Amino acid sequence: MKKKLHIVKIGGNVINDSIKLKQFLMSFKALEGLKILIHGGGAKATQWGKKLSLNIQMIEGRRVTDDQMIDVVTMVYAGLLNKKIVAALQSENCDALGLSGVDANLILSEKRSLQGGIDYGWVGDPLFVNTARISSFIDLGLVPVLAPITHEGQGNLLNTNADTIANVVATAMAKKYEVHLIYAFELPGVMKDVQKPDSLIHRIDHAYYTELKSKGLVSQGMIPKLDNAFQALAQGVRQVCIIRFDKVNSLTQGHEYTSII
Amino acid sequence: MKKKLHIVKIGGNVINDSIKLKQFLMSFKALEGLKILIHGGGAKATQWGKKLSLNIQMIEGRRVTDDQMIDVVTMVYAGLLNKKIVAALQSENCDALGLSGVDANLILSEKRSLQGGIDYGWVGDPLFVNTARISSFIDLGLVPVLAPITHEGQGNLLNTNADTIANVVATAMAKKYEVHLIYAFELPGVMKDVQKPDSLIHRIDHAYYTELKSKGLVSQGMIPKLDNAFQALAQGVRQVCIIRFDKVNSLTQGHEYTSII
Repeated sequence: MKKKLHIVKIGGNVINDSIKLKQFLMSFKALEGLKILIHGGGAKATQWGKKLSLNIQMIEGRRVTDDQMIDVVTMVYAGLLNKKIVAALQSENCDALGLSGVDANLILSEKRSLQGGIDYGWVGDPLFVNTARISSFIDLGLVPVLAPITHEGQGNLLNTNADTIANVVATAMAKKYEVHLIYAFELPGVMKDVQKPDSLIHRIDHAYYTELKSKGLVSQGMIPKLDNAFQALAQGVRQVCIIRFDKVNSLTQGHEYTSII
Repeated sequence: MKKKLHIVKIGGNVINDSIKLKQFLMSFKALEGLKILIHGGGAKATQWGKKLSLNIQMIEGRRVTDDQMIDVVTMVYAGLLNKKIVAALQSENCDALGLSGVDANLILSEKRSLQGGIDYGWVGDPLFVNTARISSFIDLGLVPVLAPITHEGQGNLLNTNADTIANVVATAMAKKYEVHLIYAFELPGVMKDVQKPDSLIHRIDHAYYTELKSKGLVSQGMIPKLDNAFQALAQGVRQVCIIRFDKVNSLTQGHEYTSII
């Protein structure tokens, strides 16, 4: 029987709020069994870019990453945020190991080619996940904490979408583990109306998702997450959940989250 | 019989020069057997601090690390420099794993208390090296690349001198390995006269060091390195070498370096 592995993705808005981040980390720490944390940090990278008077360029929610911006995202994601998260977890006796996709060649990407004439710069799309290495860290009793920086094997760092990393790591690890992929963010889950807590949708299958989308009841920000989720399920991930950041340890205690099936 | 382990410290001036850094990394990659790389990066941290208009404060060569500066050194050492070095080594098929002292609780420090009324801020002095964890990474065939950031176990990051880290890691690992500690920098070794290449001192024992110091023939920058070196030897390190950055793989090919015995 495959061992259960929780892969938790935490988003930039929670990371950017030190109180919420602390609440999330307490909840993540309390999640029992094997686990991996994958974090973003886009809001913080934008803040630091502005402090450095860089031109912040986003196209359809994707960051254009020029020579200066790849340095900034590497510093912020793999340096500041990753090490602060690891230090906080270590202070709670959670034996965290901060990593990026470069370390131990965990995630090899290809640099994104021009798309419709747009040059995204140093942005990577994952090609390969080194599941053997990730497993070996887990086998040592460590909790990998993965920053969204990868490489292309020729010495260059690549800015890589953290949701995509969560997805490809979950899919790859599903060959060996019973993977539960958890997207933690600020709402209790997928809501019909974000103003109404009782509008939480507990279960979504693909037919229901299509129906909700056609009625305009799924927010723009949620669509790529749900598309990713259905893709992960199709590729062997056991369960995908969308849950509030301070509830990731309460998956088995009721239905205060959205389960994608 | 203990296995041989090379621990190489590379200094900030080499790291700050992309051509020299590349030459160093090619030489490090070619060094055979088990190895660990420990890097500094002070010059780069100062550059980024200035870009951010921070007040750079050094007292007797030691950086005063306030709330803003600890963020900068964490970003520069554990983020930018560490990941660039790891990406460069990975591109040369050297299976590098970037780490800081926080990751897997590798190095626990204590925050430096006031010294003569001076508050150095978020600066750490190492208390404990997690040799079992470092060994487990080496046993996996990985090459640890260690940035000089540690923690105090309560969630705070600490700026820690990279020479000191090299020293304490070498001393701690000497219990299990035959440790060769290599300080790589811009000169061929300890020179009587830095203008004269033939003034390289091939071997220094403690008596000779005392004599050279009393004659003023050891530069101020070299004194802490040599003091550290003699201390490491007294605590079980097999050999300490001071060598040019592009020669670390040629230790066995002659005497173009300084051996401290």
